[in-house]
Amino acid sequence: MMHLWTAEDIWRDVEQIRREAPLVHNITNYVAMNNSANALLAIGASPVMAHAIEEVEEMTGLASAVVINIGTLSEHWIAAMERTAAAARKKNIPLVLDPVGAGATVFRTETALRLLSLGHPAIVRGNASEILALARRPGSTKGVDSSHQAEDARDAAAQLSDQYDCVVSVSGAVDLIVDRDSAVRVANGHPMMSRVTALGCTASALTGAFAAVNRSPLHAAVHAMAVTGIAGEMAAARAEGPGSLQVRFLDALYTMNAQDLAGHLRIDIE
Amino acid sequence: MMHLWTAEDIWRDVEQIRREAPLVHNITNYVAMNNSANALLAIGASPVMAHAIEEVEEMTGLASAVVINIGTLSEHWIAAMERTAAAARKKNIPLVLDPVGAGATVFRTETALRLLSLGHPAIVRGNASEILALARRPGSTKGVDSSHQAEDARDAAAQLSDQYDCVVSVSGAVDLIVDRDSAVRVANGHPMMSRVTALGCTASALTGAFAAVNRSPLHAAVHAMAVTGIAGEMAAARAEGPGSLQVRFLDALYTMNAQDLAGHLRIDIE
Amino acid sequence: MMHLWTAEDIWRDVEQIRREAPLVHNITNYVAMNNSANALLAIGASPVMAHAIEEVEEMTGLASAVVINIGTLSEHWIAAMERTAAAARKKNIPLVLDPVGAGATVFRTETALRLLSLGHPAIVRGNASEILALARRPGSTKGVDSSHQAEDARDAAAQLSDQYDCVVSVSGAVDLIVDRDSAVRVANGHPMMSRVTALGCTASALTGAFAAVNRSPLHAAVHAMAVTGIAGEMAAARAEGPGSLQVRFLDALYTMNAQDLAGHLRIDIE
Repeated sequence: MMHLWTAEDIWRDVEQIRREAPLVHNITNYVAMNNSANALLAIGASPVMAHAIEEVEEMTGLASAVVINIGTLSEHWIAAMERTAAAARKKNIPLVLDPVGAGATVFRTETALRLLSLGHPAIVRGNASEILALARRPGSTKGVDSSHQAEDARDAAAQLSDQYDCVVSVSGAVDLIVDRDSAVRVANGHPMMSRVTALGCTASALTGAFAAVNRSPLHAAVHAMAVTGIAGEMAAARAEGPGSLQVRFLDALYTMNAQDLAGHLRIDIE
Repeated sequence: MMHLWTAEDIWRDVEQIRREAPLVHNITNYVAMNNSANALLAIGASPVMAHAIEEVEEMTGLASAVVINIGTLSEHWIAAMERTAAAARKKNIPLVLDPVGAGATVFRTETALRLLSLGHPAIVRGNASEILALARRPGSTKGVDSSHQAEDARDAAAQLSDQYDCVVSVSGAVDLIVDRDSAVRVANGHPMMSRVTALGCTASALTGAFAAVNRSPLHAAVHAMAVTGIAGEMAAARAEGPGSLQVRFLDALYTMNAQDLAGHLRIDIE
Repeated sequence: MMHLWTAEDIWRDVEQIRREAPLVHNITNYVAMNNSANALLAIGASPVMAHAIEEVEEMTGLASAVVINIGTLSEHWIAAMERTAAAARKKNIPLVLDPVGAGATVFRTETALRLLSLGHPAIVRGNASEILALARRPGSTKGVDSSHQAEDARDAAAQLSDQYDCVVSVSGAVDLIVDRDSAVRVANGHPMMSRVTALGCTASALTGAFAAVNRSPLHAAVHAMAVTGIAGEMAAARAEGPGSLQVRFLDALYTMNAQDLAGHLRIDIE
């Protein structure tokens, strides 16, 4: 049976996040930490950043969702990520993995694949180049930016989804969210968003917030990409460049109401 | 004899910070670094961030105040924090300790307590949950956000103040600043400030700037919380959400004048 | 023969950056990472931040320019910086070195000098205190802020340029860019810029973007300082303080056109 994607369902999640302020434990990169924390606070969640091997299990135990992002990884951080991923799996806490830069270096691809096997993430959220790299398909990652449209990673996303039993959320001009049975496209967003650093990472953090309140990883991933894109559109409408877009993006996450959602939402299914 | 808290006294400190640009050495967390540096610059101080074990003593020796914040701690950083705290104590440089997330994990509580013993900070600045945890009192820390009002930590703050001979500055809707003889309440601030990450850490950084120019830790702590809260109010009055609040907060620290201070100041004593 | 510095030449570089989006690999400090990435994106380049010893050589191999900034250095990071500098040299990729805080501690001065020898940077970009320290001349670094005007480091810059065969770009109220044959002064910028953290680091990152498209290190360094200063002026004209200046600075990098450049450019030669 086909699911009908509605602004009402997304709004219900937003309201629950604002009401319950779920704790989202992030192990993310240095560039994205501040943005991720601010986006989670702006939408109403409660972010925590902690990566010490001595405390990650305990911190994960307090969280309603865990987000691991390999953007500026190094040896010690990988150990903490692995321990966190294992703890999240054991405790059945939804895990979102953002494989930043997979494909750019062997080190990143291998680390992401290890976390994928070990952590059994509910949702993998990356750009098309990263998803192609994880599926060992031809493609190229130019640093941390994608050289592909989300649609180019359609088969790769389906393969990963099958192989690791996870939702794969591919960001792009049109986002593509895939699980075993469905492929959903979210056409929200604005081109200027690609000129703000860590907005992809922020989408991953917000995906964590939705995974904390919605038990369907597919719904959480779709709702998060829609809200991220809509906040970006609301911000871009009044921004004079990427500096003010970033500021207004946080304002939009905070002020967004049911009408904003309904007025902007653009989801396609096949 | 009762001290009368006046906007004039606070303004004198602000003017001295702007005139002398005291160097404030920060070992703080990844999320708060940029915000802390910007807030210190906006108010007129000169921030430096340095955490390498090889240089922290030398850097501390150049500083007029030191701020240690355990927000994203790990093993190597703790070693640097301990060395810095010891150096600050030996050289009689005022130390501000922000025990971010104490109570959330054993690792954080223990680290904060060790720094408290070792460093003999002039001022401990945290939220109520953190102060309760350091005093080994029942309470809970939800990640790095407090589940309590500052007033709930009144006895815990008094206990810590006695035990470690320090001022304890507890942030909340109404801030509570306690030393052996006094309890001062600062009612400045705005609810939207809790939706901006690292504003508590920023208050700690600003407390360092005031401790650099005011020899009374109690006065430094109270003045810093008042200025932080007033800048927050000035920002919130024109902000459309937490994104613009953060931007206008820095603008307000930079533009704040004696009239702004006098017009907003809300301090209560008992 | 005397080179004539024109807005047209600078504009040609900006257009090439926007068209080609060159990958700039940054190993920079925690405070500056987000700002550097955003400034590079705003001007049209593609930033990547990566510091793991396991991947820096591979990442450097993908880049059109490399920027190393020692702002918050520690042992592991230095190892990565050294490997990156060596890789950039071997592969003939232009390297920009920002010796943040050289002179403040022995550790920083020695690290910067080692990278200077090892990496053979095309451009060293620092403030006057840092350049004086690297040339072993008397002077003082107050933390990471300069206690000198760029002109005070004129001889030191010439010495370093000779000794290491590099361009030395000294920031200040008037920037001074020196190579063996020339000294160029860029009078763009605004005093409020010194109240925003990491704007010097951002100038270094932007210098990387220009070095990626302009084969003359002297031209790249001058063009970058001019564009940084002009974006700062455009931002300051409408900013209410350092918070909004930072936001509008990114907007200005994004919106700057040939007329903005021509209208603001202030370059002097001797």
